[in-house]
Amino acid sequence: MTTLPDATTSVVGVAYLGDARIDVREAAAEPPAAGQVRIRVAYVGLCGTDLHIVHGAMDARVSTPLVFGHEMSGTIESLGEGVDGWLVGDRVTVMPLDWDGTCPACVAGHQHICQNLDFIGIDSPGALQTLWNVPASTVVALPPDLALEVAALVEPTAVAVHDVRRGEVAPGDRVVVLGGGPIGVLIASVARHIGAQVVIAEPDARRRAQIDELGHLTIDPRATDQAAWVTKWTAGAGADVVFEVSGAPSAVAASTGLAKVRGTVVVVAIHGAPREVDLKQVFWRELRLLGARVYERTDFEAAAELLAAGVVPSELLVTAIVPLTGVRAAFDDLEQGRAMKILVDVAGAGNEVAV
Amino acid sequence: MTTLPDATTSVVGVAYLGDARIDVREAAAEPPAAGQVRIRVAYVGLCGTDLHIVHGAMDARVSTPLVFGHEMSGTIESLGEGVDGWLVGDRVTVMPLDWDGTCPACVAGHQHICQNLDFIGIDSPGALQTLWNVPASTVVALPPDLALEVAALVEPTAVAVHDVRRGEVAPGDRVVVLGGGPIGVLIASVARHIGAQVVIAEPDARRRAQIDELGHLTIDPRATDQAAWVTKWTAGAGADVVFEVSGAPSAVAASTGLAKVRGTVVVVAIHGAPREVDLKQVFWRELRLLGARVYERTDFEAAAELLAAGVVPSELLVTAIVPLTGVRAAFDDLEQGRAMKILVDVAGAGNEVAV
Ligand SMILES: [Zn+2]
Ligand SMILES: [Zn+2]
Repeated sequence: MTTLPDATTSVVGVAYLGDARIDVREAAAEPPAAGQVRIRVAYVGLCGTDLHIVHGAMDARVSTPLVFGHEMSGTIESLGEGVDGWLVGDRVTVMPLDWDGTCPACVAGHQHICQNLDFIGIDSPGALQTLWNVPASTVVALPPDLALEVAALVEPTAVAVHDVRRGEVAPGDRVVVLGGGPIGVLIASVARHIGAQVVIAEPDARRRAQIDELGHLTIDPRATDQAAWVTKWTAGAGADVVFEVSGAPSAVAASTGLAKVRGTVVVVAIHGAPREVDLKQVFWRELRLLGARVYERTDFEAAAELLAAGVVPSELLVTAIVPLTGVRAAFDDLEQGRAMKILVDVAGAGNEVAV
Repeated sequence: MTTLPDATTSVVGVAYLGDARIDVREAAAEPPAAGQVRIRVAYVGLCGTDLHIVHGAMDARVSTPLVFGHEMSGTIESLGEGVDGWLVGDRVTVMPLDWDGTCPACVAGHQHICQNLDFIGIDSPGALQTLWNVPASTVVALPPDLALEVAALVEPTAVAVHDVRRGEVAPGDRVVVLGGGPIGVLIASVARHIGAQVVIAEPDARRRAQIDELGHLTIDPRATDQAAWVTKWTAGAGADVVFEVSGAPSAVAASTGLAKVRGTVVVVAIHGAPREVDLKQVFWRELRLLGARVYERTDFEAAAELLAAGVVPSELLVTAIVPLTGVRAAFDDLEQGRAMKILVDVAGAGNEVAV
């Protein structure tokens, strides 16, 4: 017999157990500590980092069991001691960064990439649970007209907003996005909203078809001489900004040949091994390569507004919505390229556990 | 019997003939064309690019015979038609860049790295000759108190000024220079003048001893854990700016581990092959890699002022002054690391040719 757990005294979540195993588990709910809020989680998006965790690729970093997940929406369920400015019932998302405030990076104003950053959902418990305690400082209010379902996309959209801001994309710019996964598509949408012209290079035909539906220009990097294509597209100048979102060595090698004199290449993907970069081209054209990681609060707030305004085509990005018990199968779909983005309906039906 | 050629009707120069051969040659002097000035060359510095040319490494680019050389000082000998603003006898140097003014890079204001740049001394005849015709637009006046001997260092100093400006070095910054050749030493001197604290990483003990004489901090990258050293030196932060001047793959690999969060790596050296770069570090710390090539007029003017003010220790940089006939031996000395910088006394005695 299955039953829904008591909604305030117990919490149901999906935990990574190590050895590439996950499980849906029930535990006693803990009240929010001082300075924390407890959120009733509505939706959680699954992303590439979650997939890495579940594959065991981040076992050296994570402590198990780990409730993962960091793209979410929900409502405030209760407030810990000393928390001001929030009300029970407020519709929110969470910027899952907890910094120390004292390291040289924090002192210099770059808290979002604190040298001792706690990324919530990787380094501490994440959102894939019915009740979630987080520092009140991480909570971000949602615009009133933004559905909770769509609000689960605020976090990945904030990544894209940050990347585009870091690359200083300007109206009229010609922008190349290398890699047409969710982040690449979000970068393209944000850049287009700013007034840039965008092309996405993506080798997978199925993905290209999905991106075509979103109205973005696409090229197949395996079938096209990208440098020649971009040179022609930009009347001999080269692209203003190139985003490397694919993680592929071949894309890195190509990236410097696509940018104009004094152009910018933004490194968005995580490259697990050193990559060959054409530094002669970096020198020759006085290029700028910029790393871009996570986001700042301004990116989160802008992302929520862009989603509320319909700039980001959430309905086309979200392939499926599944219950907590569907997470394992969802990862299989993501891995096989059968889905762009899958949300978990954490608060909905179908989240029973055996008791 | 040898004799000095007639100083106005014939010109003596050093030409690269192809196949790694050079020769001192005499030819009829050509008057300056419209828009040109003719310069009586005083001193010419030999640099790594000249060495590459003479080695045959740039045969695909240069047309032979090529009079090379692009670091120089001299006096204006005559003016071509339509040249205003200069007088015969003016003490000058030349910024050896001739751009088309019409390509996308020029239109965007980056003429110094024009997509069709003519680098004078590589792509057209250079300074290693007694009389040299150049576009009047390339001529730069020397401060009155700057000796011609020292003024031959304006060009490499302008490279360093450009690199430091590109890296946005600020007072109080901690700066690492990877590679202690002439450009590395000049970058260190310019950065120190701005108020930065500088360390030069150089594997060659003889060079380190020369650099010590200049009062710069040095480390041996082969004997020191550079990342640990820099972390300690910067109280855990990492360097504000790292200059990669060595051209060595190992220095590139190390560079990204030396820079602080949001720090800058300036790529000054020419890397003939793609290099492995730790892009995960670029991402993680949101680093900025910047290519820096040649200079703009403002850099040239600043370099002349810095040399006139004695900021750059020219007397320690210049190892020897040789006649035109001593160029071959000078290249041998440079190649063997027996010299930091060698000047050619183009106007002086010892420049006889057989007639
Ligand atoms: Zn910090
Ligand atoms: Zn041009």
